[in-house]
Amino acid sequence: MTNPTAAMLVIGDEILSGRTRDSNMYYLAGELTKHGVDLREVRVVSDDPDAITGAVQALSAAYDHVFTSGGIGPTHDDITADCIAAAFGASIDVRDDARALLEAHYARTGVELNEARLRMARIPDGATLIDNPVSTAPGFTLENVNVMAGVPAVFEAMVASVLPTITGGAPLLSQSLRIERGEGEIAATLNALAADFSDLSIGCYPFQKNGVFGASVVVRGSDGARIDAAMTRLAGELGL
Amino acid sequence: MTNPTAAMLVIGDEILSGRTRDSNMYYLAGELTKHGVDLREVRVVSDDPDAITGAVQALSAAYDHVFTSGGIGPTHDDITADCIAAAFGASIDVRDDARALLEAHYARTGVELNEARLRMARIPDGATLIDNPVSTAPGFTLENVNVMAGVPAVFEAMVASVLPTITGGAPLLSQSLRIERGEGEIAATLNALAADFSDLSIGCYPFQKNGVFGASVVVRGSDGARIDAAMTRLAGELGL
Repeated sequence: MTNPTAAMLVIGDEILSGRTRDSNMYYLAGELTKHGVDLREVRVVSDDPDAITGAVQALSAAYDHVFTSGGIGPTHDDITADCIAAAFGASIDVRDDARALLEAHYARTGVELNEARLRMARIPDGATLIDNPVSTAPGFTLENVNVMAGVPAVFEAMVASVLPTITGGAPLLSQSLRIERGEGEIAATLNALAADFSDLSIGCYPFQKNGVFGASVVVRGSDGARIDAAMTRLAGELGL
Repeated sequence: MTNPTAAMLVIGDEILSGRTRDSNMYYLAGELTKHGVDLREVRVVSDDPDAITGAVQALSAAYDHVFTSGGIGPTHDDITADCIAAAFGASIDVRDDARALLEAHYARTGVELNEARLRMARIPDGATLIDNPVSTAPGFTLENVNVMAGVPAVFEAMVASVLPTITGGAPLLSQSLRIERGEGEIAATLNALAADFSDLSIGCYPFQKNGVFGASVVVRGSDGARIDAAMTRLAGELGL
């Protein structure tokens, strides 16, 4: 019984130019881990139709679920919806259900639903809408691809809308041990531990902060008792 | 005269599990932009040999330069060097020049150069070493792939070592305008601007913070006078 797999596609020149520091990847990674979905790969591509379409096709074929972030607003550089449609050969136009959501929203707020805003109702045929409780304009799910906004508050709200529709597996559990010794000091111990607990993932992450060097050892898996056993042995062998 | 292109490969389960928030992507993106190298794609993959090797081959073939982050320490989960060697069919073993660096470093600090630490001297045949002024263990460049550490302080020092060896292009210049109106309000103006300044990249990034909604318009290119002209027209048309 293995967990479903997932990939993320972040769309946006602003990330690749270093203007914006992405936060959606970190957020999604944490949420998927809690939900028992294994995030296996992330790609960041620019606002380029071929790059987006190619990445969507590759990731959709390779993983159970794909989550995209960015490029579904009202401006000329918001091309994600059309690229997703193209990736699956689906037709796309302003759709009545999405238009009705926007009409109600803008009527409430007294703002004109102009041509640019109407672009946000362009939804591929066959897609399911993803609820956006923050700013109304919906995301959508087409095949196994969940298309969401890039603005962090909206992205996070859409993740909350879509995750309950996805069957998760066993949440990934982890324990960590902070060790103020060099990685090279503990590597042999970890090697042996990893060999004897091959059902667990054992990672070693060096740190250096305020002049203190060391490593955090993180043991991950879905069986809490096995993780306990590995951590107990590790602490014992290191005399901690 | 177009700028050289680049991709980044971040290697590490700790990013995909949401344990660690990556900072190397944001750092490298900014440095490459200043140096006139266009970062076109980033991938994050797990500590899995096939995933690493496949991504390196794909990115190396598609872009002028590749930069990797993570997986070159002394522990069992540090498999990047061997995967890079495999990706290019190069042999790999402890190399004398890298071993000499480590021997001198550990002799100075009175620490034993044990078998685990010696793993950090595993360098593919034909690779050039990348200087590590922080903690000595070197990175390396093989073909067009620059292999660097994941610890941010070390990664950043290695980027500083390797960037001067890469011929950059025109630095990407940008100007931005913060507009406290909805994206939908300014989209038509931006559409027309993007059409008339097709040599520039014009991005629109919505924000919502402390109850204030709006958008930042960012105009990017290598010709400062053209950027000035676009910004002047934009401000005029929006009455700013």
